[in-house]
Amino acid sequence: MSKPKVGLVGGGSWATAIAKMLCKNHNIINWWVRNEETKNYILTHKHNPNYLSSVEFQPEQLNLTTDINELVSNSDWIVLAVPSIHLEACLADLNVPFGDRLVVSAIKGIVPVHYKIVGNYLNDEFKVPFENFGVISGPCHAEEVALERLSYLTIAAMDKQKAKMAADGLACHFIKTNISQDIFGTEYAAVLKNIYSIAAGIAHGLGYGDNFQAVLMSNATREMNRITQNVSPMKRDVTESAYLGDLLVTGYSYFSRNRMFGNMIGKGYTVNAAILEMRMVAEGYYATKSVYQLKKVLEVKAPILSAVYKILYEGKAPNKVFARLAGKLN
Amino acid sequence: MSKPKVGLVGGGSWATAIAKMLCKNHNIINWWVRNEETKNYILTHKHNPNYLSSVEFQPEQLNLTTDINELVSNSDWIVLAVPSIHLEACLADLNVPFGDRLVVSAIKGIVPVHYKIVGNYLNDEFKVPFENFGVISGPCHAEEVALERLSYLTIAAMDKQKAKMAADGLACHFIKTNISQDIFGTEYAAVLKNIYSIAAGIAHGLGYGDNFQAVLMSNATREMNRITQNVSPMKRDVTESAYLGDLLVTGYSYFSRNRMFGNMIGKGYTVNAAILEMRMVAEGYYATKSVYQLKKVLEVKAPILSAVYKILYEGKAPNKVFARLAGKLN
Repeated sequence: MSKPKVGLVGGGSWATAIAKMLCKNHNIINWWVRNEETKNYILTHKHNPNYLSSVEFQPEQLNLTTDINELVSNSDWIVLAVPSIHLEACLADLNVPFGDRLVVSAIKGIVPVHYKIVGNYLNDEFKVPFENFGVISGPCHAEEVALERLSYLTIAAMDKQKAKMAADGLACHFIKTNISQDIFGTEYAAVLKNIYSIAAGIAHGLGYGDNFQAVLMSNATREMNRITQNVSPMKRDVTESAYLGDLLVTGYSYFSRNRMFGNMIGKGYTVNAAILEMRMVAEGYYATKSVYQLKKVLEVKAPILSAVYKILYEGKAPNKVFARLAGKLN
Repeated sequence: MSKPKVGLVGGGSWATAIAKMLCKNHNIINWWVRNEETKNYILTHKHNPNYLSSVEFQPEQLNLTTDINELVSNSDWIVLAVPSIHLEACLADLNVPFGDRLVVSAIKGIVPVHYKIVGNYLNDEFKVPFENFGVISGPCHAEEVALERLSYLTIAAMDKQKAKMAADGLACHFIKTNISQDIFGTEYAAVLKNIYSIAAGIAHGLGYGDNFQAVLMSNATREMNRITQNVSPMKRDVTESAYLGDLLVTGYSYFSRNRMFGNMIGKGYTVNAAILEMRMVAEGYYATKSVYQLKKVLEVKAPILSAVYKILYEGKAPNKVFARLAGKLN
């Protein structure tokens, strides 16, 4: 049996890191990037013009395209690695069948406007059945993949064989993989950790110290467990790397955009000023609204999520909201 | 009913931080320090000569003594806050009954030579019944208490009323308290976190990155759960602050002595050179030997503990041990 053909969608840092992993295991990878300039730059200079430029590619390994239909048609399984805010535009021209192959999301966020996790969005809009959907989760900063620092990925899919196929396509001497069947919990955890990372940033910006931060992250772990259990009840150990590990690498990273965004809010920036200053919207910003609405439906006790929501969407003063939150933590 | 009289044992930074908390709730505290010089310095200069010197005391609130028997006789409950390596010497002259009052350990370590946690040591050597024993646990850096940064303590005692009594004596506007009945799990977690902090330091020293660190801490949380459940089985949520929170504040702190010790080992220092260079023995060093011996008895899967033991006590090369450990994590 010939090796399943892989297609990668995205030209950012995480997509570039995944391309590096895939090239260790495939003679040729199909790779969609947004524009011809990026495509030609990579072919000529052997690296991404904008992200992880230290990662060198062999052009003969890359079947680069800017045509999403060509990419999907040529691939047995597809890794989506565009930022969630670009997913809808990226798939807008798609007119070939999509749901009959394995679609694996490496996107850590909520699809804006739709306010859905990627699995639900693809299921609703593109008829991708959940059986053909997978999730790639960290803890994994792209920058460390570029440096070949040992990292662990969890690949979730309902069908263990499909999870294993994707895992085999990604594993290499600096990437270890676990497989899981928890597609919903894994995706929600990846979304929630961005919200808790904003909370960690707000706390830091307000002047709370390491003692509080540890209590906040410990409470966030329990809140993540309550929410994922409510959204998708199953036997799940929230201290596994795809949940707790992913939370820690983001919550304790000074490079996390979500944490940085929260830090600015804690230091007194308005939400709009922080977005303008960062020239981007942190993914946790959308996630907060989306999960908060869900939380209201599900009646889960989620004081950290509520606190971040009140600050980001109701204009409440961070110092007052966090003083109240502190009384609810333990 | 008059307020229970409190006695504090220890003159280090953690003892000084606890003295600050106790002074918020008591007109007078009994406080044992090792020598007359320290006692007189505190009375004259209103602060500890060596630790947390920014914390100011009112001499009229302090009944300072260097006589352990006087301290115990005068106190309804006693907080032990000397480093574990000094506990035995500190109690050597004790000849008044000890076990009839509540003895609360704020010591985070194993008593050397005896290789026991404090609760077992006091029970075996001083007939302190477990019903009269309590544990104070973080996450709590003393330095942040000095700055009055909001921190959370867990006070564990088998008898909830006794836990509550100690908690009430410590809580103030910058200290929130939880109570628990898990005296063994809380003490073992506080000991284990020092071992995992050494592991985090070794990983950092060897050049592993944040992705690996998050996986290591997530595996450490599960290992901590297995060991505490084996030592003292009970309904216990390892993601609570006294367990996970305490692990995080130490494992992610660059100021942790255990992490620093591990970092030196990872960078190539021998164990003896690292001890000499730091001019002290990190508490996790003793803890590793003690818990490893326990682990062998209990047959718990504890690859991180085993790895640290092999490096510290069997002279194995850190890079090789960690390469093998990495294959066991997930």
